[in-house]
Amino acid sequence: MDAEIIAVGSELLTPFRTDTNSLYLTEQINQLGVEVVYKCVVGDDLKRLVAAAQHALFRSEIVIFSGGLGPTEDDLTREAVAEALGLPLHRDEEILAGIERRFAARGWKMSANNAKQADVLEGAVVLPNPNGTAPGQWLSGKFDGRERIVILLPGPPHELKGLFEAECRERLRAKLPPAFLATRVLKVAMLGESHVDARVAPIYKRFADVQTTILAGAGEIQLHFKSRAETMEAAQARVDEAADAVEEELDDTVYSRNGESLEQIVGYWLQMRNATLAVAESCTGGLLGERITSIGGSSRYFAGGAIVYADAVKTELAGVPADMIERHGAVSREVAAALAEGIRYRCEATLGIGITGVAGPSGGTPEKPVGLVFHALASAGGTEVIERNFPGDRKRIRWFATTLALDMVRKKLM
Amino acid sequence: MDAEIIAVGSELLTPFRTDTNSLYLTEQINQLGVEVVYKCVVGDDLKRLVAAAQHALFRSEIVIFSGGLGPTEDDLTREAVAEALGLPLHRDEEILAGIERRFAARGWKMSANNAKQADVLEGAVVLPNPNGTAPGQWLSGKFDGRERIVILLPGPPHELKGLFEAECRERLRAKLPPAFLATRVLKVAMLGESHVDARVAPIYKRFADVQTTILAGAGEIQLHFKSRAETMEAAQARVDEAADAVEEELDDTVYSRNGESLEQIVGYWLQMRNATLAVAESCTGGLLGERITSIGGSSRYFAGGAIVYADAVKTELAGVPADMIERHGAVSREVAAALAEGIRYRCEATLGIGITGVAGPSGGTPEKPVGLVFHALASAGGTEVIERNFPGDRKRIRWFATTLALDMVRKKLM
Repeated sequence: MDAEIIAVGSELLTPFRTDTNSLYLTEQINQLGVEVVYKCVVGDDLKRLVAAAQHALFRSEIVIFSGGLGPTEDDLTREAVAEALGLPLHRDEEILAGIERRFAARGWKMSANNAKQADVLEGAVVLPNPNGTAPGQWLSGKFDGRERIVILLPGPPHELKGLFEAECRERLRAKLPPAFLATRVLKVAMLGESHVDARVAPIYKRFADVQTTILAGAGEIQLHFKSRAETMEAAQARVDEAADAVEEELDDTVYSRNGESLEQIVGYWLQMRNATLAVAESCTGGLLGERITSIGGSSRYFAGGAIVYADAVKTELAGVPADMIERHGAVSREVAAALAEGIRYRCEATLGIGITGVAGPSGGTPEKPVGLVFHALASAGGTEVIERNFPGDRKRIRWFATTLALDMVRKKLM
Repeated sequence: MDAEIIAVGSELLTPFRTDTNSLYLTEQINQLGVEVVYKCVVGDDLKRLVAAAQHALFRSEIVIFSGGLGPTEDDLTREAVAEALGLPLHRDEEILAGIERRFAARGWKMSANNAKQADVLEGAVVLPNPNGTAPGQWLSGKFDGRERIVILLPGPPHELKGLFEAECRERLRAKLPPAFLATRVLKVAMLGESHVDARVAPIYKRFADVQTTILAGAGEIQLHFKSRAETMEAAQARVDEAADAVEEELDDTVYSRNGESLEQIVGYWLQMRNATLAVAESCTGGLLGERITSIGGSSRYFAGGAIVYADAVKTELAGVPADMIERHGAVSREVAAALAEGIRYRCEATLGIGITGVAGPSGGTPEKPVGLVFHALASAGGTEVIERNFPGDRKRIRWFATTLALDMVRKKLM
């Protein structure tokens, strides 16, 4: 069986909004052993919606609609699916009473347009919406001689997710042959995609029943492993075997074995070692602190630090001698080390990081070009400095620099 | 004329990747006066691609394909469009020689699979790719008795953009009736969507020929105005009239009149006033510094600051008296003010910002719940503090807090 997802809404046909519900739905559907083979976006236009629904119902066994279930004139998914399937809509008095109660509970009177949210396709199961007014609908059976499953879900992501989990997952599983999908994600920092692929392709190609996908982001490679089997144990055993073999090859460059973020892993190691961290950031301007503190509870291991943009602030907040800056320049191995050591001392932290570089787009020189960054890690045992020339724009250079710094902390502690 | 966009690639049918090329293409196409009425994603599967291409060519006048033009077995867009249109593919010797030269220039030998990138649909114009190997293709004429424009573009975003701008925009314009689209974007900080809409809907509804869209993000409302006319001047005059009327109503809550970001506007005002800024961030952990320094050239007005996560660091780097923290708590009006004043003094800046709050998910108490944030702005004239209770998760609370702080700076300087 194959699935198709139709996102409904004219706002999804503007330059400003993209359909993200289908990413969640794809993940859910893949886990049930079903592939998504088409995704479409259609605006709030009855004729086009009917045509798209007909076409989807012709070519795909499972068709999931998201959006267009609200109370406004533009919400036309119910009407379009009814027309495409040649089924009447019935107004469900129980749903209607529930909507009226929702309004009454807030002291409001329900306006007439809300009643259409109680319209149900003949033969459909009504799926209660735990997080909103418009219920979903589930329809399965033969249409035009073809066995089909049709699901209508509301567009707001938290309503769609709540409803899918509560009402659709098990209903779908019951309709499908038993198939279990096991997944693993390995993450690698600061290696190139082609380098990683060259090393691991000979390994993962040995596992014909494990689907391996390599995704490259700034400073990070993700290796996704997927395998299907008739039991979860069998599927899991295969992805683990493939992932373990790949991990052995990549050794300590693998920072995450189950999808955790680098920020989480660094926090994990700092807590494991009962250590604290302080940072002094020049060209990254706070991004490293922001990434570390994006994790809830990071106050257990993150002391804080300084954003040392102006040279005088490097001296004032991180204790870098002014004459050192003058002698070596603010972007130098020496200043990076002094930042790391100074902020470690000032914040009384176990480890100190110093970052200084040229993020661009301006400010580069032949000796110190845009992309040059010095990363220092100071500890009781001394200070190490890594110099790199990163490609890309300001955003990418800052991301690379903070990723490398986080990975230095991980390697120091693991 | 209506347009349809088909994104080709199995990776776009996974939970990990979304098609973003269509947002750029939609913006470009809208500017030529054409609406995008369908968007589809199809995997690297010849049969499905042919069927999707046939269907699109039946229902839409302009069909744009992105992706599937590379050298691998999975790159099937050329073959699929050829089959859908019933046209043969010819290998273009000139393109082939160009690809061979590209490889030779890097000292590599071209592998045989690359030759398929030189396959051209009969009657198509070859569109040179300034940023990659695979050229685009342009085909216009009658197919099955219907007038159609078919465009094949490479999938990597920078290749697609370069090629569309250089080769497609003017070609499309020449095929379309003269229509000019003028746009304006107003941005408003820290007001609710329903509040903004209630105030401005009576105004923008007076402009029947201007399409107004309200988009809400965390701490920011964008008002997009669009109008089409036969000359650019006429279109621009209408959007300006609508935008100016709305701006008059919203007054100084409008921070951006032409789409600039809040970070850009704050930088603009700091430079205008010859002022500098320093920050001391507790719960936002560096996000405010990161946002300010995301703008190239921000070293002209941003001195730096401190990430004062641990209480001892609030004292050490921003000079907040330890007994003040003990008496009032780290999350308090007093500590926010002391952070702003202390960091302003230490960094010798014109303005100092202090932020302290509870970003959650843990750490809240009945008196100081998750979402409570104090924002202080210190200047030569004194210190103001704003207290807010923000809804949402950690990420949202931190975004709101930094947006409010940036807006305080803007209002102080404008």
